[in-house]
Amino acid sequence: MNTALNSLLDPDRLFPTGTKTRDIARGLYSAIKDLPIISPHGHTDPRWFAENECFTDATSLLLIPDHYLFRMLYSQGISLESLGIPRVDGGPVETDKRKIWRTFAANYHLFRGTPSSIWMDHVFHSVFGLTELFSSATADQFYDQITADLQSDAYRPRALMDRFNIEVIATTEGAIDDLKHHRSLAGTPWAKRVITTFRPDDAVDPEREDFVENVRRLGELTGEDTSQWSGYLDAMRARRETFREFGATATDHGHPSAATADLSLPDCQALFARCLSGDVSASDGELLRAQMLTEMAGMSLEDGMVMQIHAGAKRNVNKPLFERFGRDKGADMPSSTNYIDGLSALLNKYGNEPSLKIILFTLDETTYARELAPLAGHFPCLKLGPPWWFNDSPEGMQRFRQQATESAGFYNTVGFNDDTRAFLSIPARHDVARRMDCRFLATLVAEGRIRLNEAEQLAEDLTYNLVKQGYNI
Amino acid sequence: MNTALNSLLDPDRLFPTGTKTRDIARGLYSAIKDLPIISPHGHTDPRWFAENECFTDATSLLLIPDHYLFRMLYSQGISLESLGIPRVDGGPVETDKRKIWRTFAANYHLFRGTPSSIWMDHVFHSVFGLTELFSSATADQFYDQITADLQSDAYRPRALMDRFNIEVIATTEGAIDDLKHHRSLAGTPWAKRVITTFRPDDAVDPEREDFVENVRRLGELTGEDTSQWSGYLDAMRARRETFREFGATATDHGHPSAATADLSLPDCQALFARCLSGDVSASDGELLRAQMLTEMAGMSLEDGMVMQIHAGAKRNVNKPLFERFGRDKGADMPSSTNYIDGLSALLNKYGNEPSLKIILFTLDETTYARELAPLAGHFPCLKLGPPWWFNDSPEGMQRFRQQATESAGFYNTVGFNDDTRAFLSIPARHDVARRMDCRFLATLVAEGRIRLNEAEQLAEDLTYNLVKQGYNI
Amino acid sequence: MNTALNSLLDPDRLFPTGTKTRDIARGLYSAIKDLPIISPHGHTDPRWFAENECFTDATSLLLIPDHYLFRMLYSQGISLESLGIPRVDGGPVETDKRKIWRTFAANYHLFRGTPSSIWMDHVFHSVFGLTELFSSATADQFYDQITADLQSDAYRPRALMDRFNIEVIATTEGAIDDLKHHRSLAGTPWAKRVITTFRPDDAVDPEREDFVENVRRLGELTGEDTSQWSGYLDAMRARRETFREFGATATDHGHPSAATADLSLPDCQALFARCLSGDVSASDGELLRAQMLTEMAGMSLEDGMVMQIHAGAKRNVNKPLFERFGRDKGADMPSSTNYIDGLSALLNKYGNEPSLKIILFTLDETTYARELAPLAGHFPCLKLGPPWWFNDSPEGMQRFRQQATESAGFYNTVGFNDDTRAFLSIPARHDVARRMDCRFLATLVAEGRIRLNEAEQLAEDLTYNLVKQGYNI
Repeated sequence: MNTALNSLLDPDRLFPTGTKTRDIARGLYSAIKDLPIISPHGHTDPRWFAENECFTDATSLLLIPDHYLFRMLYSQGISLESLGIPRVDGGPVETDKRKIWRTFAANYHLFRGTPSSIWMDHVFHSVFGLTELFSSATADQFYDQITADLQSDAYRPRALMDRFNIEVIATTEGAIDDLKHHRSLAGTPWAKRVITTFRPDDAVDPEREDFVENVRRLGELTGEDTSQWSGYLDAMRARRETFREFGATATDHGHPSAATADLSLPDCQALFARCLSGDVSASDGELLRAQMLTEMAGMSLEDGMVMQIHAGAKRNVNKPLFERFGRDKGADMPSSTNYIDGLSALLNKYGNEPSLKIILFTLDETTYARELAPLAGHFPCLKLGPPWWFNDSPEGMQRFRQQATESAGFYNTVGFNDDTRAFLSIPARHDVARRMDCRFLATLVAEGRIRLNEAEQLAEDLTYNLVKQGYNI
Repeated sequence: MNTALNSLLDPDRLFPTGTKTRDIARGLYSAIKDLPIISPHGHTDPRWFAENECFTDATSLLLIPDHYLFRMLYSQGISLESLGIPRVDGGPVETDKRKIWRTFAANYHLFRGTPSSIWMDHVFHSVFGLTELFSSATADQFYDQITADLQSDAYRPRALMDRFNIEVIATTEGAIDDLKHHRSLAGTPWAKRVITTFRPDDAVDPEREDFVENVRRLGELTGEDTSQWSGYLDAMRARRETFREFGATATDHGHPSAATADLSLPDCQALFARCLSGDVSASDGELLRAQMLTEMAGMSLEDGMVMQIHAGAKRNVNKPLFERFGRDKGADMPSSTNYIDGLSALLNKYGNEPSLKIILFTLDETTYARELAPLAGHFPCLKLGPPWWFNDSPEGMQRFRQQATESAGFYNTVGFNDDTRAFLSIPARHDVARRMDCRFLATLVAEGRIRLNEAEQLAEDLTYNLVKQGYNI
Repeated sequence: MNTALNSLLDPDRLFPTGTKTRDIARGLYSAIKDLPIISPHGHTDPRWFAENECFTDATSLLLIPDHYLFRMLYSQGISLESLGIPRVDGGPVETDKRKIWRTFAANYHLFRGTPSSIWMDHVFHSVFGLTELFSSATADQFYDQITADLQSDAYRPRALMDRFNIEVIATTEGAIDDLKHHRSLAGTPWAKRVITTFRPDDAVDPEREDFVENVRRLGELTGEDTSQWSGYLDAMRARRETFREFGATATDHGHPSAATADLSLPDCQALFARCLSGDVSASDGELLRAQMLTEMAGMSLEDGMVMQIHAGAKRNVNKPLFERFGRDKGADMPSSTNYIDGLSALLNKYGNEPSLKIILFTLDETTYARELAPLAGHFPCLKLGPPWWFNDSPEGMQRFRQQATESAGFYNTVGFNDDTRAFLSIPARHDVARRMDCRFLATLVAEGRIRLNEAEQLAEDLTYNLVKQGYNI
């Protein structure tokens, strides 16, 4: 038996298997694999970089925060309590980290064929130097070595930043965040490497239970009268400026749909008043979010911030689980998303501005060829973000390039986002993207559709240059 | 010319063509190709196994009941009358079976590139030992040999069950079926091999013309008062129990959408009364079906039956053809299906029950990555059925694995269903699924995404173990 | 470095890269690559063939009319004015053709991985014999040689028709077109090679600003009273007859949806009256278009014309751009399209007529497997057109065959349409289609799914025979 077939990490993994194409892919990859990582959108905790404390243990770092992992275990009947996921009511959950880790190991076969196993094997092998396969038999050995390693200086967050060759990483903070960790980084060399992103959903989505309170707090933070539409917008402007002081080059907007609106001023004022008055209808909720996307695009035109739109996630669809464990516990689901009608109001107002940059993300792959690529291949302001969330996977990346490239080209895309809170998996995730891009480019070369020198340039552009250009970094 | 390119059955058919990947696929396939067939969902006639009579002739067995075949011939202007399809009004249709067979042979080129030609060539070659290509030139020879063979004991239904190595086959019967063929098998060794499935659509869908009569008959069969909601539910429970006596481990629900509901008891009672009172509105029809999916899930939780949901077929869209030939005559069409919103009521009520098993099927492939895999990769009760109907094909299977695996994994799927009334094609259909699964697994191995020993285990699981587990067989 | 990887035109371009499959593809392609081109649907200017004047220069011929090219340049912030696109108000735009050409050259990298670069490289190499790569460095050389060549007799439209081996080309004219160029070809041998197509959208879509005027003009042209429904239909019949005199074998209908209707005569009369009375509601607009598709199908049944339906384009979504530059300026977008519900009225009326031919096109690829292939694999009147517009690309063609073939077969398709006004790219476009079809067929052969002799027959059918049959040419 070919031992490569059973090694932890195949050096040719994800490349095409035909000799000609694989050799081209290898060549392209070898030239870009060591380029610095630009991570322009993600969910790492800025505290890690500010405080630079050691991570505690394998389970707390690698398993409990990773919704990709616990949702799959949950799907096979393993309770979230037994995985140590904290309950909203503070009720008892498993606290024996080693026991949780063993459950993970005993069920690691569930991840065969999923990106999680690629990422985890990469972490085990490349970050911790483990060479055996992860299983019940090696669970304790893995747990002990990882947990021990994490206590050493070489595994502190900043040391890992260097080791991972992360040039810049953007975290994501809400409109009323105090940015205290970014404040503590200010003035240090790390301030240029760990930047924030302005994500105002908490004060933009009136269907959130804490919206009214968040808008009030927004006023407090900025000294604006956020009980009025104009003060609310000015408060947003002020917060954008503050975020820019802490490195932010981009905003981010996670909306259930891609709807945008362009209401008259009186209509905006009335809508905002209704939203602040308490019980918000679903249509008012949608309309305020829609109007605010257009407002934010206008502010981006003023202040130069790049605008990211992550549209189409239906949140907390599992109500009993949401009530027991709260947000982000694996019960968020994709939904059909209509970008062409949805973005119409915004695009008719600002779509022809070449200085505006709006990066679109989707959970609905049917829109790649039908909507997103035609839009990005026409409107000067639009760029396409990489495959997101459920689609951040080898097959997902391949479908994105195959379905978006012919109408949008490569130069209306912006490279890769890891979009993760799983800090140790960042090199693994970027490596998958680099390999899949080289694979796609190699296939185009081998089929005579682009030339090798073009592919070489594209590999570097997709890995590095387009990310910095796309995000003004 | 390479003769393999023109043989009736290429031994490497459906495998990838690159040497490395093909060799892995061959190896995986050779280890599982002779595993027994588990056929947990299909439409064979239980009479065949109960009476064990000879089939009559090639045309009556292989062509006339096969809607894949006659719909394609019809699409090219060949009338259903000329193919011997019986008319609702008993009007004249072609009765010369040999003549019909010749029409089929003369048009066999229409099936190039479709699964029908793969299945038929497999039947010709493997079941009847024919080695020439099917065409007008060989039509009579094929007709004569097949029809002659069918008169021999070796081609009786039970002999074929043994020869095909079918360990268990499930037929599908309606809520008011008398199960007479299953009754006649009871007590024989065949009762464990030929089991029924409870498909209550005839007494659940109030838009059927025979709904009221079927509900009345349901009451008669069970001694329950089915004019009342509670008696109707009790009657369903009783029938489920009776079906289980005849081997049923599963129910099946063919609905035009995936809608579910969770109404209050008074609302259920009022809705049911409206549905029984005659003219049913489309919204009441949808609502009763929706409520009944939730009721059936509750009953599955009580009695342990696996629940299959086949959602999204629009029936009888060709009205003139339906009026002339009745149901199931090739004019059923897929439709866009929303599983996340549709299943919401049921999942919020029962979705977190690990002891419940619901197997989802779709005719809308856009839902694989966007809805079904994320759902199955989260909810403990959900599993994904294999590609269904129009998607039960090599390309369809490949898209299913490529689009569902990364979010659902392999272990939230349940292997293959042949779902056919074409008994002789069952080995061919399972063979296609086995080859396509080995192809997919071999590709993952060759690309370093899983290891060979994992693929070997998966090949066996997908072919045999997951089917038995998924269906409680 | 393999020089083939950097040549302008790889002789094996678009073929699969595995040796076995590539060799089969090469063999299939070599047998059909020189078959005459049948171009049954497109937008070339009949004046070219009627007057046979020289084209003026590279920019005016190859760039300015090509919306694939200028939309991509526009998406990167290059104004349409700077590309010489004429403004509606006649305002100033760039007129220096060489300068525009240089802008194109400097941005040619934007087209990497898009079909435009394949088509343009083919034009440069095969039509003008250029062997270097197109770039800023070669921009002037390309401009000069192409512009010079265009002045020679060998590059006049009719000479190119011969050189391109175009047996027949269909142009597309509106309902009130005077057909003057076709009239001037009448009686010459060219009349059989340059035929018209009847596309009545201008007098069928009541939401067009010029609808009422166009209907009036339709009456004038035909001597019918088009203020009345019956006269309007008779005028359509008359125009269809006139178009047939100038070679038309087909009609074409570009509608925003696939909706059809089958209203009573009084309802038609009332609807038509409302549409003529001025301000038309969106629902009346949709309804008249829907009814007219059914009327046109009825007329096709009478007069034998093939009916093409191009459904699902949302026109002019970029309002400011539309106001400045008018129609067809790159701001047309695909939309989700429902063919099964949409075509229901028409199909229930005429769908079972084997003598009727309706060719369906889509911009929504999700319908290939879910709607179009099941429809075409059942209804005698339906055939599937090739991938259209954004999907007229290597990946788009591959997805079409992979997703449509298993349910529709090959024989419910009608070969390739170039659908272009870019005359010089016609050989390139047909070459891409021929290569992609041979690639698909070669893969089926190599995987044992069809036989080599079947693939050879299919390659010829898809390239030539099915086009002529499908379009009654």
